[in-house]
Amino acid sequence: MSFNTFGQMFRVTTWGESHGPAIGCTVDGCPPGLPLTEADLQPWLDARKPGQNKFTTQRREDDLVRILSGTFQGLTTGTPIQLMIENTDQRSKDYGDIAQSFRPGHADITYHQKYGLRDPRGGGRSSARETASRVAAGGVARVALAALVPGLKITGYMVQMGARAIDRARFDADQIARNPFWCPDPVAATDWATYLDDLRKSHNSVGAVIEVTATGVPPGLGAPLYGKLDADLAAAMMSINAVKGVEIGEGMASAALTGVENADEIRMGPKGPEFLSNHAGGILGGISTGQPVVVRFAVKPTSSILTPRRTITTAGDEIDLVTKGRHDPCVGIRAVPVGEAMLACVLLDHVLRDRAQTGGQRGQIG
Amino acid sequence: MSFNTFGQMFRVTTWGESHGPAIGCTVDGCPPGLPLTEADLQPWLDARKPGQNKFTTQRREDDLVRILSGTFQGLTTGTPIQLMIENTDQRSKDYGDIAQSFRPGHADITYHQKYGLRDPRGGGRSSARETASRVAAGGVARVALAALVPGLKITGYMVQMGARAIDRARFDADQIARNPFWCPDPVAATDWATYLDDLRKSHNSVGAVIEVTATGVPPGLGAPLYGKLDADLAAAMMSINAVKGVEIGEGMASAALTGVENADEIRMGPKGPEFLSNHAGGILGGISTGQPVVVRFAVKPTSSILTPRRTITTAGDEIDLVTKGRHDPCVGIRAVPVGEAMLACVLLDHVLRDRAQTGGQRGQIG
Amino acid sequence: MSFNTFGQMFRVTTWGESHGPAIGCTVDGCPPGLPLTEADLQPWLDARKPGQNKFTTQRREDDLVRILSGTFQGLTTGTPIQLMIENTDQRSKDYGDIAQSFRPGHADITYHQKYGLRDPRGGGRSSARETASRVAAGGVARVALAALVPGLKITGYMVQMGARAIDRARFDADQIARNPFWCPDPVAATDWATYLDDLRKSHNSVGAVIEVTATGVPPGLGAPLYGKLDADLAAAMMSINAVKGVEIGEGMASAALTGVENADEIRMGPKGPEFLSNHAGGILGGISTGQPVVVRFAVKPTSSILTPRRTITTAGDEIDLVTKGRHDPCVGIRAVPVGEAMLACVLLDHVLRDRAQTGGQRGQIG
Amino acid sequence: MSFNTFGQMFRVTTWGESHGPAIGCTVDGCPPGLPLTEADLQPWLDARKPGQNKFTTQRREDDLVRILSGTFQGLTTGTPIQLMIENTDQRSKDYGDIAQSFRPGHADITYHQKYGLRDPRGGGRSSARETASRVAAGGVARVALAALVPGLKITGYMVQMGARAIDRARFDADQIARNPFWCPDPVAATDWATYLDDLRKSHNSVGAVIEVTATGVPPGLGAPLYGKLDADLAAAMMSINAVKGVEIGEGMASAALTGVENADEIRMGPKGPEFLSNHAGGILGGISTGQPVVVRFAVKPTSSILTPRRTITTAGDEIDLVTKGRHDPCVGIRAVPVGEAMLACVLLDHVLRDRAQTGGQRGQIG
Repeated sequence: MSFNTFGQMFRVTTWGESHGPAIGCTVDGCPPGLPLTEADLQPWLDARKPGQNKFTTQRREDDLVRILSGTFQGLTTGTPIQLMIENTDQRSKDYGDIAQSFRPGHADITYHQKYGLRDPRGGGRSSARETASRVAAGGVARVALAALVPGLKITGYMVQMGARAIDRARFDADQIARNPFWCPDPVAATDWATYLDDLRKSHNSVGAVIEVTATGVPPGLGAPLYGKLDADLAAAMMSINAVKGVEIGEGMASAALTGVENADEIRMGPKGPEFLSNHAGGILGGISTGQPVVVRFAVKPTSSILTPRRTITTAGDEIDLVTKGRHDPCVGIRAVPVGEAMLACVLLDHVLRDRAQTGGQRGQIG
Repeated sequence: MSFNTFGQMFRVTTWGESHGPAIGCTVDGCPPGLPLTEADLQPWLDARKPGQNKFTTQRREDDLVRILSGTFQGLTTGTPIQLMIENTDQRSKDYGDIAQSFRPGHADITYHQKYGLRDPRGGGRSSARETASRVAAGGVARVALAALVPGLKITGYMVQMGARAIDRARFDADQIARNPFWCPDPVAATDWATYLDDLRKSHNSVGAVIEVTATGVPPGLGAPLYGKLDADLAAAMMSINAVKGVEIGEGMASAALTGVENADEIRMGPKGPEFLSNHAGGILGGISTGQPVVVRFAVKPTSSILTPRRTITTAGDEIDLVTKGRHDPCVGIRAVPVGEAMLACVLLDHVLRDRAQTGGQRGQIG
Repeated sequence: MSFNTFGQMFRVTTWGESHGPAIGCTVDGCPPGLPLTEADLQPWLDARKPGQNKFTTQRREDDLVRILSGTFQGLTTGTPIQLMIENTDQRSKDYGDIAQSFRPGHADITYHQKYGLRDPRGGGRSSARETASRVAAGGVARVALAALVPGLKITGYMVQMGARAIDRARFDADQIARNPFWCPDPVAATDWATYLDDLRKSHNSVGAVIEVTATGVPPGLGAPLYGKLDADLAAAMMSINAVKGVEIGEGMASAALTGVENADEIRMGPKGPEFLSNHAGGILGGISTGQPVVVRFAVKPTSSILTPRRTITTAGDEIDLVTKGRHDPCVGIRAVPVGEAMLACVLLDHVLRDRAQTGGQRGQIG
Repeated sequence: MSFNTFGQMFRVTTWGESHGPAIGCTVDGCPPGLPLTEADLQPWLDARKPGQNKFTTQRREDDLVRILSGTFQGLTTGTPIQLMIENTDQRSKDYGDIAQSFRPGHADITYHQKYGLRDPRGGGRSSARETASRVAAGGVARVALAALVPGLKITGYMVQMGARAIDRARFDADQIARNPFWCPDPVAATDWATYLDDLRKSHNSVGAVIEVTATGVPPGLGAPLYGKLDADLAAAMMSINAVKGVEIGEGMASAALTGVENADEIRMGPKGPEFLSNHAGGILGGISTGQPVVVRFAVKPTSSILTPRRTITTAGDEIDLVTKGRHDPCVGIRAVPVGEAMLACVLLDHVLRDRAQTGGQRGQIG
């Protein structure tokens, strides 16, 4: 991974700033002959877009994606696919007052130090708006995965808001789309609504934990030792704005397990090996096992809050700063479709890389 | 990152299997004119090598590293540095009985499925023995960092064994080298010794959490959005054997914080900006802030245990397997120098990448 | 180099088809703080654009480039620069009749075989129209080179049309911009005008040799052994449409030299080493010497001609094909600004890569 | 391509200096399950090795290659293959006197300027000795090609020594192995023997042109626009020591052709499309056509000659230098197996990359 490109065979290069004329990405290496139109991508963008309820920023963006290249008569041609999303609601005046100061928790100060200047309008390049490009690229990846790995299914949801985790016993996948939090536990969803409303009203924000899973993943994806599937997933998720931790399977909790507990024992099932548990999160030695791939990541609380925080200006003056504007009280909510998109991109990249080296053939068992 | 290479400008390509004639790595992109001999690397390898006490595998390896290229008269020449470590204690007979079965928790089954065959001797390529090459490469990175970023200091230590975490109030860096666990809390170290001895005797093993930090890191390292410093660190740590989770700063715990709590407020100090806290772990927007870079990762319990576990053979037969051999009851112990090495390599890579783009110049404040 | 991206630190990813809505490129890794507006790029695009005289295609394109990202208040920010050029004169009807047949000398048949389908409108992705993106990216590279290597100067010109070479004794750099062929020899330019007009009228076309040079190149650029400056230049030039050969310095003619003749002898000048000749074309061992970098490449004759040629259809039927449309009788003419752009991009990439590894320091002589 | 690695999916990283303890390379991304032992590689190294007749350097090297990793029980495992060749005949004293001076035509001065120091023993890293690693890697590529593309055949030969070209009418592939020049024209071979002997005795050297071809190449290899097959071949050949020009098909001569002449017309044959000529050298739009791939490159005359040449020392003193030692009067001779090896590596890389994106499926014709 380098600069603004991720992936090796399925490569995505994103570009654009929050308040420039447009954002977008180039998707390179997509298999040819796949049906692809804007209608395949728009639903994923609609799921991520802001302004849909009181829990996300009230910035209004249609987030209409256009395909500028790489398809002909509705089919991918194997050449680079350019996806562009115009920025329409750019209220730069909201941000003018913070051009000369560094918002705590934001990238303002680091961009300034590294580059000597920065685009302060809406966070510029470091804005979460960039994730729309990831979601669009993820839509392309999903189309390719549907063709190459039928049955593969990606699901993302929030499992924790603040210190309030879901009850796994109440996990119901059908609930995910029925509340504004992508929460699979209806009781938690109700609780979070009240909790987040209170936080918002008190000019505060909160973090979250997102889990994204893939079922139907074939065994054999991942290129040890430095193209391990889990290593690439870790980089992909950590590259999302505000993410501070990534876990595979048991994740950090694996430290507290003993070897006897942690061993995912194996038996033969009717179609091949079956694991009796999935502490590994579907990945052993950097290679997929065929079990569900389970990734979690923590999103820190939104840094833009109406409570004043101490900071400095570019001139070195000490000030108290209130970040006005239209901000999500829990930016983790909108990270759910982004995590799904990154998982889709990484899995497709590894499907292509695997068939490069092995031709997709698998070692026999039994 | 791709296959067996990591890094962009400081690139490390590792090779070798646990029981082949040798392992090693090629270090490419190292700055020229740096003093480098085997004596600069050997201490780091000695710290990692097995057989030093009863808590690590009794395999006896001298782990003597040889520099085969890339230096002349004790100075780096800018050409690739080949580091080779011969394997001397290869008791393959220990492993012969598991060639046709898949050890639970190991990469046996995934390598078999992906490649159709595997080198079963000591885990072959997926053995933790490969990490010796990382430690050697990290030694080169340290030499370069010492020249390019004087004052940068890397420290690694174990903060949790099983469910037993250190008490941060007792943190004493001087303790780290004084116990076999790289533990900064002397009370925890004593406790862990008893705990681990009991686990070992009961044919069990346990996981751990390692923390590696770097102080004296200049601001401005990291290339958003897909070469973010934290994304590269996440990939680097997740690529280490048995790692299942990676955290930066607050990590997964950031989910439970509010925005008011999480904001690292900024004041002006005598030499520039100073942060009043470091929830960010020294990285904002993928770029270093100048504060200590703090990375943690969880290592799962050693999968090779003397307690029988259910599994299958390549023929599909169901068996109970005991993994004999000489294994660490807590493989996390030896991951400490490995984590330090990976941090050194990633930081140097980003120092070089940063000066490529910016020339190392920094934006002024005040 | 991979797929649609070239460069390592200064990376250009191009996208777009001849008759799609737009073409463009993402320029990643550009140093920050450089003055950059569309006005810096447009002159280079104007030099390349079609329809300027009877010797180039009569397709009318304004080739107006827009900067969609990566600058703020007229300065580069260090984030990806998106350059977009809308296609305005897309007479697809000109090409409709060749959608089901393979034009000899074109990529029609290979795209069809590789991808199973292709965008036949104007050659789709394989059209020379893509080179406008390269020229735009080259404009960015020139801005950066002007800041980082003051005095570096890139000059491109045609040295041979068909079998008719210029007379080097008449070389006059001031002539290059004064004729439609970028020809430094006014006598040859006059001769070529008549020659090419006759060819065009006889429904034929012809090849050319282009030379691009850079003076003021510092010594030390180039990363042996597989990032050699000459190897990267060879790939860059060979990637231009219709190029079939690339030479550095003496090029293919070096085969006929003896070692005594070929040695570029060295003396000390007032400012450092001076070479008494430049058979090497400014590159030794893959690294620049400080002498002018001299690259030549051959462009094959335009494959689209009005003379019928035998070919087949996608159905396998044998036909005689005349390629109608608006075509350059010597596509090499418009390759001159493209070669200059590629040289600028490669040189900047190596300037950045060199300062990554060496910090730009040079070994002393004398 | 970057620094000391080439290839994308089949990646080769070389290391080592002429007079260090060993040279070698890491081959990464090789398909698993292929039969591979040293016996598969040694013949290619034997073909390249020095000291076999009076026309090549009298340095005596056994060039015995060892496989240190990546195979198990004689089969590739899919993990990195380390190939090592020990240097046994390192007469460093031959080179001691040139440590402080720059041999004209050599990389001495550029390495010194870039890195500030260099390994002067035998040219260090810039020695043609490095090409032994390429030949070894090429041997691995040939094994994989034999399995993946049965019938693909690579042939290299010399077509010109000095100004003396072969007569294509006398081309006889069986002659290639029967003379020390890999010359397919027996008359030319006899002539060259006398010519080169005279040159050698007169303390001079001469250049050459090598042609390498591949038949049985499937259509569809090559990834436009910056992973074009011809662009990758150009970089690969130009990266070989002393190469100054690369041609595909007609190469530089294509400039002198008209469009009518250059069109490779197409008819339907019994098995698919057939081209009536091959000016394109088997590549259109960067993608293989199925015709023979034809690459030529020019090797400059050996720079190490016994005739004194003017140069300077590191102290800036002007001297006349005679390069003693054991040198090939025509280094192009030994470039023949190197060119073959690079062609093998590039073709395999593209076979793997193609099947990553397309699965190896081809568009139908007829």
